Amino acid sequence: MTLRRPLSPSARAQSIKPTLIRALRAGMGPETIDFGLGQTDLPVSEAAARGAAAVLRHGTRAPYTPNAGLGEARAAVAAHVGCAPDQVMLTCGVQEALAVSLLGLVEPGDEVLVPDPGFPAYANLVRACGATPVAYPLVPPAASGEPWGLHLDAIAERIGPSSRLIILNNPSNPTGTVHSGEELGRLARLIERHDLAWLEDAIYEDYLWSGVFTTLSALESMQARGVRVSGLSKSHHVMGWRIGWMVAPAETIAALTPLHQHLVTCAPLPAQLALIEALKTHREAVADACVTLAARRQTVQRLLSPVEGLGLSAMQGAFYAFVDVRPWLGRFASSRELAEALLAEQDVLVIPGEGFGDGGQGFLRIAYTVGEPQLSEGLSRLTQFLEAYRL
Amino acid sequence: MTLRRPLSPSARAQSIKPTLIRALRAGMGPETIDFGLGQTDLPVSEAAARGAAAVLRHGTRAPYTPNAGLGEARAAVAAHVGCAPDQVMLTCGVQEALAVSLLGLVEPGDEVLVPDPGFPAYANLVRACGATPVAYPLVPPAASGEPWGLHLDAIAERIGPSSRLIILNNPSNPTGTVHSGEELGRLARLIERHDLAWLEDAIYEDYLWSGVFTTLSALESMQARGVRVSGLSKSHHVMGWRIGWMVAPAETIAALTPLHQHLVTCAPLPAQLALIEALKTHREAVADACVTLAARRQTVQRLLSPVEGLGLSAMQGAFYAFVDVRPWLGRFASSRELAEALLAEQDVLVIPGEGFGDGGQGFLRIAYTVGEPQLSEGLSRLTQFLEAYRL
Repeated sequence: MTLRRPLSPSARAQSIKPTLIRALRAGMGPETIDFGLGQTDLPVSEAAARGAAAVLRHGTRAPYTPNAGLGEARAAVAAHVGCAPDQVMLTCGVQEALAVSLLGLVEPGDEVLVPDPGFPAYANLVRACGATPVAYPLVPPAASGEPWGLHLDAIAERIGPSSRLIILNNPSNPTGTVHSGEELGRLARLIERHDLAWLEDAIYEDYLWSGVFTTLSALESMQARGVRVSGLSKSHHVMGWRIGWMVAPAETIAALTPLHQHLVTCAPLPAQLALIEALKTHREAVADACVTLAARRQTVQRLLSPVEGLGLSAMQGAFYAFVDVRPWLGRFASSRELAEALLAEQDVLVIPGEGFGDGGQGFLRIAYTVGEPQLSEGLSRLTQFLEAYRL
Repeated sequence: MTLRRPLSPSARAQSIKPTLIRALRAGMGPETIDFGLGQTDLPVSEAAARGAAAVLRHGTRAPYTPNAGLGEARAAVAAHVGCAPDQVMLTCGVQEALAVSLLGLVEPGDEVLVPDPGFPAYANLVRACGATPVAYPLVPPAASGEPWGLHLDAIAERIGPSSRLIILNNPSNPTGTVHSGEELGRLARLIERHDLAWLEDAIYEDYLWSGVFTTLSALESMQARGVRVSGLSKSHHVMGWRIGWMVAPAETIAALTPLHQHLVTCAPLPAQLALIEALKTHREAVADACVTLAARRQTVQRLLSPVEGLGLSAMQGAFYAFVDVRPWLGRFASSRELAEALLAEQDVLVIPGEGFGDGGQGFLRIAYTVGEPQLSEGLSRLTQFLEAYRL
């Protein structure tokens, strides 16, 4: 144990592990084709810009909003997701919604089930609560073109007396899978049997390409025991504006609002006003983005499908391709080493699967958040690279 | 101990106590003259609006910013406060800067010294860290017109083996005091002797009416052991936009950035852009607001000074008058009861001092954030009320 100095970071702060994404980005150059970022290159939606503009008119005031959000913003989300306004809290993006949910529900010593592979912030936040993340494996597709699965028996095996909550990300980052209604039904029965809470991160819910999308919150038995978080970042391209929401039973929203108040006071007003306007024409805005992203998804499919030995998981949702490069692990010790070589030799950044947990080993995440001609150019460089290193 | 249900709030969430402010506001009507709010009624500064407008132009993108903030925004704060850019983190308002500082430095079981009377969020955040807030008393003025003092012996008495950090709010909410350089020098020696960390909340630093303002961070011996937080909310009237900053040694900023990232990702982009522009003409914007607030402060002085028995602390900084109504405690059991009667009978809201800690008992906080004619009308109703209840 090192001596504690006045500004020594707390164990809580130190429990947050740097992500592989961050380490890799340090090696980027100005011309790097960046398939690493989980944000689109699309402009702010017109409705979001129109909503936020109100806050900038000359002489406009910018008071604090109520801690849980403007009444009109809460009502807009409630109408959007189908709940009561007092079941909604507006947050500084989904990230704060995750932080409020976990800090607000999880005690030190608890165990929280997190998907592997999955968004690394889940495990980091769980650790920051003084709790233990327990990775539950997602099952890689048996064949190219199939989705990743929920392995219910593996989840059940990992539930013990300290298990408190399970995190589900649907559609899933990094796998691009939309978990089926049948899988969610089985998961719900498991959650109920073990009296767990759940936290569903649905930030990619607007980008659905195949499969049938459902949510734990649609299941009657789940409604009193879970929190669903989502937001505008991915659908209206306002990542930096910081606006998300959590939906939960009204008493949970009320109980966690003081914590949210003490973290950030309230979600930013310009983004709350943007949200009110954006949700009025949500389908149209999303439809526009979907046209662009669907075309890119086709490009990924078209350029990567022919690569022999490469496995392409079903791209059912979100804007990620999660590709199986395990046949290349004879040439590289890990997908990280492969990604590092790809960056060094071809100036293309992809995120190695192990950045999302051990279960991602042997996979690469490609975010098709980059437009043409970079998209085709980057994929073609990846293809050349893989051909060159074929065993 | 009650049975833990799936969505039972954590002890952390439950440790945050509802504020008296919140309870009193529930009794407000549409015509209530509101001296309760810690935010001005002034419009967004022109520079801030101009800065944020860039984000709304058609076709503009709104990506995540670097977690610690845009380079240009960090540089702007660094130039403003006189430090290096890597000593700056942009946050979702001062509230998040306080949260990151305390969650990032304080361990469960630590003791943190908080001012009494003081902003209730300090003690709440300390409790949310699993630590113990230890109130240190500020000393009420010996006579009307004098400031509240730092009682160094009382602080020393409260320092023990678990003491970790001391929070200072200067200028002070609710007292309106600007702590003197001599007091800060003595405090600094105490901090050094006991190897404490410090957290200075300087959000009201732009509103100085008398006294000489200094800061712990200006003292050489303090620079490696503390964090200073401030922001634009009070000076550019962008409370709802959520922009603040923390300034600390570069290694502390680096060590706490992952925690900040996991709470909110980054400070909101529109507010970061506003800040870059706002700090360019900061003096002018603040000078405008000071003209308005100084006139109101004069009105408070003029209308309340003649009230016999009422004590008026020196209004040295911020926009609060903290008035001594202890002579009326023969008629009311507490300043809270007095404030409740004032609201019920005169429709004027003030915050009772005990809302800021036991040391505030017998005082009322009057925020002169309300323009004429409400200001004079409210103060005159307060005066009538006090005359009517004179013993």
